[in-house]
Amino acid sequence: MSDPLKVGVLGLGTVGSSVVRLLEEKQELLKSQCGRPVNVVAVSARDKKRDRGINLQNIEWFDDPLSLAISDKVDVIVELIGGEEGIARACVESGLKKGHHVVTANKALLAKHGVALAKIAEKKGVLLNFEAAVAGGIPVIKAMRESLTGNTISRVYGILNGTCNYILTRMLNECMSFKDCLIEAQKLGYAEADPTFDIEGHDTAHKLALLTSLAFGSVISLENIYREGISNISLADIQAADDLGYRIKLLGVALKTHTGIEQRVHPTMVPTSSVIAQVQDVTNAVSIQTDLLGDLLLSGPGAGGDATASAVIGDIADIAKARPGFQNGPVFGRPAVMLNPYKKARMRAHAGGYFIRLTVHDRAGVFATVAKRMADNQISLESIVQRPMEKDCLPNTKTIILVTHETTEAAVRKALLTITEDGHLIDKPQMIRIERPSSA
Amino acid sequence: MSDPLKVGVLGLGTVGSSVVRLLEEKQELLKSQCGRPVNVVAVSARDKKRDRGINLQNIEWFDDPLSLAISDKVDVIVELIGGEEGIARACVESGLKKGHHVVTANKALLAKHGVALAKIAEKKGVLLNFEAAVAGGIPVIKAMRESLTGNTISRVYGILNGTCNYILTRMLNECMSFKDCLIEAQKLGYAEADPTFDIEGHDTAHKLALLTSLAFGSVISLENIYREGISNISLADIQAADDLGYRIKLLGVALKTHTGIEQRVHPTMVPTSSVIAQVQDVTNAVSIQTDLLGDLLLSGPGAGGDATASAVIGDIADIAKARPGFQNGPVFGRPAVMLNPYKKARMRAHAGGYFIRLTVHDRAGVFATVAKRMADNQISLESIVQRPMEKDCLPNTKTIILVTHETTEAAVRKALLTITEDGHLIDKPQMIRIERPSSA
Repeated sequence: MSDPLKVGVLGLGTVGSSVVRLLEEKQELLKSQCGRPVNVVAVSARDKKRDRGINLQNIEWFDDPLSLAISDKVDVIVELIGGEEGIARACVESGLKKGHHVVTANKALLAKHGVALAKIAEKKGVLLNFEAAVAGGIPVIKAMRESLTGNTISRVYGILNGTCNYILTRMLNECMSFKDCLIEAQKLGYAEADPTFDIEGHDTAHKLALLTSLAFGSVISLENIYREGISNISLADIQAADDLGYRIKLLGVALKTHTGIEQRVHPTMVPTSSVIAQVQDVTNAVSIQTDLLGDLLLSGPGAGGDATASAVIGDIADIAKARPGFQNGPVFGRPAVMLNPYKKARMRAHAGGYFIRLTVHDRAGVFATVAKRMADNQISLESIVQRPMEKDCLPNTKTIILVTHETTEAAVRKALLTITEDGHLIDKPQMIRIERPSSA
Repeated sequence: MSDPLKVGVLGLGTVGSSVVRLLEEKQELLKSQCGRPVNVVAVSARDKKRDRGINLQNIEWFDDPLSLAISDKVDVIVELIGGEEGIARACVESGLKKGHHVVTANKALLAKHGVALAKIAEKKGVLLNFEAAVAGGIPVIKAMRESLTGNTISRVYGILNGTCNYILTRMLNECMSFKDCLIEAQKLGYAEADPTFDIEGHDTAHKLALLTSLAFGSVISLENIYREGISNISLADIQAADDLGYRIKLLGVALKTHTGIEQRVHPTMVPTSSVIAQVQDVTNAVSIQTDLLGDLLLSGPGAGGDATASAVIGDIADIAKARPGFQNGPVFGRPAVMLNPYKKARMRAHAGGYFIRLTVHDRAGVFATVAKRMADNQISLESIVQRPMEKDCLPNTKTIILVTHETTEAAVRKALLTITEDGHLIDKPQMIRIERPSSA
């Protein structure tokens, strides 16, 4: 049995407290699995007096997280402070430079500074593990970084935000409005008081940026993500999608096209018969499409103290199992100095199917005009549904729902612009992109 | 850049040929990902002259696989010969004893001799990787062995055989009989000429035995798996299940009960709304239930040359990334000498819901008798469906379908025995166990 692995934990919120508690509770199991004890020897957090329900008696307390990050008393630092700059960044950077292994759940930090931090880690020959930063406890980083070595990835997409998936699931199952579902999610603690970061897709974008780099061997490029949130999705969309055999999910999607890399976060229709359509409530899922393996899907809890701690502990265990002299694979699958520049595909060149919902004046000729505008833009239609007036609608209105065959974003935008100018629309047109598993 | 990793491949069937071809085709990608070249330097197979569509010019040919296994010219041997004894076993054992790392896809070998081989590997400080042995390209071994370190697993279950899942999917979607689906699967190459190993659940049992050991830290115990195949499943079962909101899948299930470990392979009803119910055709899926993470599901291709080769290459890459002095985690998650003895739970004590389909004489009092027999055995019922005579049935017969609440295997067996003795049945009673995701 080797020397214990000495762990320092920075940040004692929900996840940090879980990590400290579980490394204590599970010490016998971890010792047998890792071949050595794993001990938390130091922690740092803002308030020493707060009761976190964990025993800190034999653990050294650091008031200054940076002192812990560079302390000789630890082998690994676990950064659970959060935030893309400030103390979190300083601790990770200093820790790596000191020669400590780092485990972090900080997606914002990595989405912004991941490549620079990976360069430091690789130069110092230490590990920078971040399984918990994407999709909580789901081992998607390990799968992409290790299991899929040798695979050429063509697309990765996933449900990466539990709050949004919860809201969309409830809207469908309980016929509730977006607003009511959001209030409910806030009451249950699934959504923040200010929910913008989740529901507008920023959280999903951070996670997607990391997956994209792993998938395509390119530098991380958060700023090149096209982003739409779910606040614009109505119950009418959800129900129309259901009738047509689709579910609406907030997906992060990254794929390689002939013009570059497409990264997008938006509400997406997926076939109800697909596996990802059945991923409900706060559960996350990631689908990875490769040349050798085909389609791999991973699904599980994307958040929560213990689920996220599980990913952190897995990362710590990988370090514990490694021995001096050991050198693991690179942080983003390829050495950071060898990551390709990011080449952006134009969003207007995006090709796919579209769901379009139009609320129009109920008068003669409207449908013919809409159909003509589609034809003018070479958009062919898979389904057309013209609904009778629905109970909540204004009098003398009707709803036209179109599902297109594969077309381009540019064609759809142009058609909708012309239809809007025609003056038949009562509301802004609704447009939702369709994503299909490769086998569907 | 370090020295190349020298790989010897034993067996050049579909997977072996894919591995050799892909390590050549993907050499640049692998070099950047692993930090060193990965080269196939030696192969051994039965027929040197056979055209496998791969270039063997710069690769040394060994007529005797055992000589390759112990050759100083390789660092790793990849065993793709198959079979639980004979030359495959001799090669793996000799290779490990020689101090070579071993990668194998041989589930039969590991299900029988895995613990003994792991002891050799751990004593010699080499890796024995077997991702390809279970669920093809799906990284379930890595997830259980590495990502879930520190988790206590309560249940693992999965669709582990593509042939069976294909047949069951086709029966439902095309309203075809088991026999016709099997013939179709044979034509498409999804089923062997002698399909027994797949359809009677032996293949699933081999894979389950390995997952059970990883899940519970116990020695592998293939002989303690309760096993039923799918040849007994009729279209009537599939359709009745569908009406009731279930799909029928051949699952391998391992769980811990208060009396021990339950390992079973049998046709299983899962709720149609569950993710695993949507896993179709030859796709495999594994669900793992743990205390920290909750439920993790992985799904993807369970067979095929390139998909299986992907898992083999991932295993080789893990070895390539490791450096001298490195010591990975133990083969079955815990050191082989520390694996617990296997404690078997009695199948008759199995608790769960049951689907029961009875074909009875259409006469007064039959249903009352059936209901009484259930009540006599303290079995309470969730659904009762009494169907009118179906078109293919004999005249004067009807079908009674029962879905029970949780009860025991012993109670159900006793009730069915008594019902059979009552003389109202025309056919053998059909009984299918229900498995629910923890969240359903």
